[in-house]
Amino acid sequence: MPQGRPLTVPADGLSTRARRNAPLLAVHTGPGKGKSTAAFGMALRAWNQGFDIAVFQFVKSAKWKVGEEAAFRELGRLHERDGVGGPVEWHKMGSGWSWSRKSGSADDHAAAAADGWAEIARRLAEQRHDFYVLDEFTYPLKWGWVDVDEVVATLGDRPGNQHVVITGRDAPQALLDAADLVTEMTKVKHPMDVGRKGQKGIEW
Amino acid sequence: MPQGRPLTVPADGLSTRARRNAPLLAVHTGPGKGKSTAAFGMALRAWNQGFDIAVFQFVKSAKWKVGEEAAFRELGRLHERDGVGGPVEWHKMGSGWSWSRKSGSADDHAAAAADGWAEIARRLAEQRHDFYVLDEFTYPLKWGWVDVDEVVATLGDRPGNQHVVITGRDAPQALLDAADLVTEMTKVKHPMDVGRKGQKGIEW
Repeated sequence: MPQGRPLTVPADGLSTRARRNAPLLAVHTGPGKGKSTAAFGMALRAWNQGFDIAVFQFVKSAKWKVGEEAAFRELGRLHERDGVGGPVEWHKMGSGWSWSRKSGSADDHAAAAADGWAEIARRLAEQRHDFYVLDEFTYPLKWGWVDVDEVVATLGDRPGNQHVVITGRDAPQALLDAADLVTEMTKVKHPMDVGRKGQKGIEW
Repeated sequence: MPQGRPLTVPADGLSTRARRNAPLLAVHTGPGKGKSTAAFGMALRAWNQGFDIAVFQFVKSAKWKVGEEAAFRELGRLHERDGVGGPVEWHKMGSGWSWSRKSGSADDHAAAAADGWAEIARRLAEQRHDFYVLDEFTYPLKWGWVDVDEVVATLGDRPGNQHVVITGRDAPQALLDAADLVTEMTKVKHPMDVGRKGQKGIEW
């Protein structure tokens, strides 16, 4: 069971309170399941504390993660109506970013990914949200659509107390180096290996 | 990005539909973060599909996972009030199982864990829920408080289409063998290693 005891006390000149409130950069990578799911679980906890949540899905198809999206939209409505939890925004590259005038620019994935990151960088500078999920953001980094060094620099310079969780396989080393928390999900056994298909309530 | 294509088609005599609806036994193990968080993320998706959700927390302290518990209780209320999603039950060993007359029998963890498993076995036989999270259930198995072979047999015989997710380090091999989906969470880097402490909205 988890123990909240730090192994060492860092010589960073920060008070315990300042260190406690340091914004977190987490990366969930590896070939196993649960990378995005764990990120949304973290967002659920953050929502419960009243954090302002923003999810950015860097995926081709808007069909993925419909279950999570619907549940978080309900949570966002619950916040608006009853004041519990925090506000929720959910943005998808697959169906064209909601803020972008170029509707459904799905033909140029590289441009859409760069547009998504540019908007996130703007929001980080403005301290617009408390908790960001950059879902499957490692792929545009891997494919060179978004510059890793610029991402690492922007994340390193982000003001205030904004938490960021990035998911996806093959996270670049520079991103892992910059992260505070890195978890690798390893596939040990998967039902699709033995011919089972995805199913409602489990896969979506 | 995920591909829903099975690698092989099994010679199990089942139709695609039967195979698709086969109940899932998933285990999240390993020393990394995200085991429980990913289980709750799966539960969120199942809730959105209207599944009946039951969480059983096999932990000493009821203080853990307060964020998830509060969020799921809100989702359960949302279901009762607006009919969206599914019903939610959340049971904790730490504060004494709600169904148990022996209130707060926290002194005898072994008996409390066995009591928790006995209730889950009854509910599985009755097909009471659609989606079970047995959080940190590997510990009572590891410590011999609950018999692994009996658990594996009961899970193997469970009727209907009940999905079960079990979390915790050091899952016994017999449980891994019985599972359809096993994901190991590996710690690559953790902020507590460099002296940072848990914080609101992130750790609870």
